[in-house]
Amino acid sequence: MSIALTLAIQGQGKVSPNPMVGCVIVKEDQVVAQGYHEKYGGYHAERNALIHAGDEVKGATAYVTLEPCCHYGKTPPCTDILIEKGIKRVVVGGLDPNPQVAGQGVDILRKHGIEVKVGVLEQECKELNHIFMHYITHKKPYIALKFGMSLDGKIATWSGESKWITSQKSRDHSYALRHQYSAILVGIETVIQDDPMLDAKKSEFKNPTRIVCDTHLRISEKSKIVQTSKTIPTIIATASDDSIKKKNLQKLGCEVLEVEKLNDHLNLEDLVLKIGNRGIDSILVEGGGIIHDAFLRNQLVQRIHAYIAPIVIGGQHAKSAVSGFGFEALKDAPRFKFKNVQQIGDDIYVEGEL
Amino acid sequence: MSIALTLAIQGQGKVSPNPMVGCVIVKEDQVVAQGYHEKYGGYHAERNALIHAGDEVKGATAYVTLEPCCHYGKTPPCTDILIEKGIKRVVVGGLDPNPQVAGQGVDILRKHGIEVKVGVLEQECKELNHIFMHYITHKKPYIALKFGMSLDGKIATWSGESKWITSQKSRDHSYALRHQYSAILVGIETVIQDDPMLDAKKSEFKNPTRIVCDTHLRISEKSKIVQTSKTIPTIIATASDDSIKKKNLQKLGCEVLEVEKLNDHLNLEDLVLKIGNRGIDSILVEGGGIIHDAFLRNQLVQRIHAYIAPIVIGGQHAKSAVSGFGFEALKDAPRFKFKNVQQIGDDIYVEGEL
Repeated sequence: MSIALTLAIQGQGKVSPNPMVGCVIVKEDQVVAQGYHEKYGGYHAERNALIHAGDEVKGATAYVTLEPCCHYGKTPPCTDILIEKGIKRVVVGGLDPNPQVAGQGVDILRKHGIEVKVGVLEQECKELNHIFMHYITHKKPYIALKFGMSLDGKIATWSGESKWITSQKSRDHSYALRHQYSAILVGIETVIQDDPMLDAKKSEFKNPTRIVCDTHLRISEKSKIVQTSKTIPTIIATASDDSIKKKNLQKLGCEVLEVEKLNDHLNLEDLVLKIGNRGIDSILVEGGGIIHDAFLRNQLVQRIHAYIAPIVIGGQHAKSAVSGFGFEALKDAPRFKFKNVQQIGDDIYVEGEL
Repeated sequence: MSIALTLAIQGQGKVSPNPMVGCVIVKEDQVVAQGYHEKYGGYHAERNALIHAGDEVKGATAYVTLEPCCHYGKTPPCTDILIEKGIKRVVVGGLDPNPQVAGQGVDILRKHGIEVKVGVLEQECKELNHIFMHYITHKKPYIALKFGMSLDGKIATWSGESKWITSQKSRDHSYALRHQYSAILVGIETVIQDDPMLDAKKSEFKNPTRIVCDTHLRISEKSKIVQTSKTIPTIIATASDDSIKKKNLQKLGCEVLEVEKLNDHLNLEDLVLKIGNRGIDSILVEGGGIIHDAFLRNQLVQRIHAYIAPIVIGGQHAKSAVSGFGFEALKDAPRFKFKNVQQIGDDIYVEGEL
């Protein structure tokens, strides 16, 4: 199953919103075939492992990180090929929460006389596809916040200096993080102040869709994001009715997403639902502090990726990683679970999961 | 030397402003005697190890974490007893920066034909006595800040709720920290708002001296700190000339320390020098944010102990672990070195050293 997990992860950034899946076929203690779900629309792991296999897989055991599917999607059901190729035993990491599968895949295999065991390295298999699991269950994108901050939680000095608080190593690590999410989201303030590219930075990574929260459509047509929107998918989420500017942005390559207004801001619940409906299963929110606060207070955040630099900036007017209105009572403030605490260069990297 | 270090640490909280020292006497691969500096004014480690020893230590090797002293203080020089008992070889962790020793201890031993090796587990031995090393070199107390904060650097919500952000385990750990410092310092705001005891919490720990920064002498005579100042040493540092209130506080048991004023605050440089002159070798500053900022901007901080809870509080008006004026430019903000990063219960504990 460990090998299957390693195979599965090779699909990262290429299969979304499908899950990453790996499959290893073992006969008489030998790996006789293997495969993984390589790209969205392509064959699933089981089919990739078995399609060219012959008699050597007859009577073999298939280790697969996720319950095999039993429905026709872009490709035929995986249960079919397992049965067809004479697999004798299937070991499954975890069940597929997709209502089109959800235990039915396992049932079909059992009905065909295949021995099935479910729940091997289940935690690891679920963690691998936590985005898929969330998206298929809630129909809303999985949302993570990313901060790069000082030990005292600042993302800039009071005068606005922010380059750089964290080390190059941390920033490289955070760019690789973008590869795990289908979209990056920032507020318009970040675009106005930093004019970022928000691209994948490295050619081996895919470019996630860029989403800008821009209630009043203040984005400059000359911003790097707009200027590169023909090559990197870009969504400007707005509640503005400036149809001329909208058309100009569309001409330049942006998609303009109309979102409801709530207290003179975007209604984030509506935004998130609309983004989910577009097939985007996950968003990495890269600030600033007001945006982070708004997502947290709307209970839309599942995970935090924090890079903490060993610098102390201080200042009651310095920008905080999470500012805005904030929580009034501690009992209402979200408590995460720290996992994956590690030192990256001089900094500390922490993942907090709800 | 590892055993000697373990012995030395038993003197923690009892020998200040002396260094913690451990000594192990080894002959023919057997530990034949051992000792450590147990309390201020008592025998040093070498004398404790050797005083009751007989012929079994003749020709033995002494492992001692710090260079043996060669001067008369409250007890006779350690070099004397090493020579007198016929020790053949002395292995030293690190040299003593005290100008009264500073290599002379080693010289005397060598002059008496004893083989001396310096620098075994030197880093560990220096770390053990980093407070002593700083105090003896700079004649100023070693200063550490302690924060207990949310992941986003807050010590209270915008409405002022602060109990509790970190877990009981972290708070217990931080109480044990007080044992490592000779004094705890807070600002008057913390006293007014929280009315803390600032005691050692556990009977096995000593009570550090409590220092309150109180420029205008606003402390209430009914506060817990003042009320318990006859049993726990308490210093009220002030620039006020309210002689009646000063006398009342003194009657209740407090020491009133007159400190220069600078921009309507206490001159921290003056405060720190005066505290150092009183024989206090170390201060743990336990906030709030304005006090932390002031110590940092005065370049008086050597170490930070941070407890980070997996909660996010948000709010531009929420209290930050380091607030006040803050640093304008990143190049001026102090960069520490993270060491000793660990998970304590649900929280993360981090030490930052300058």
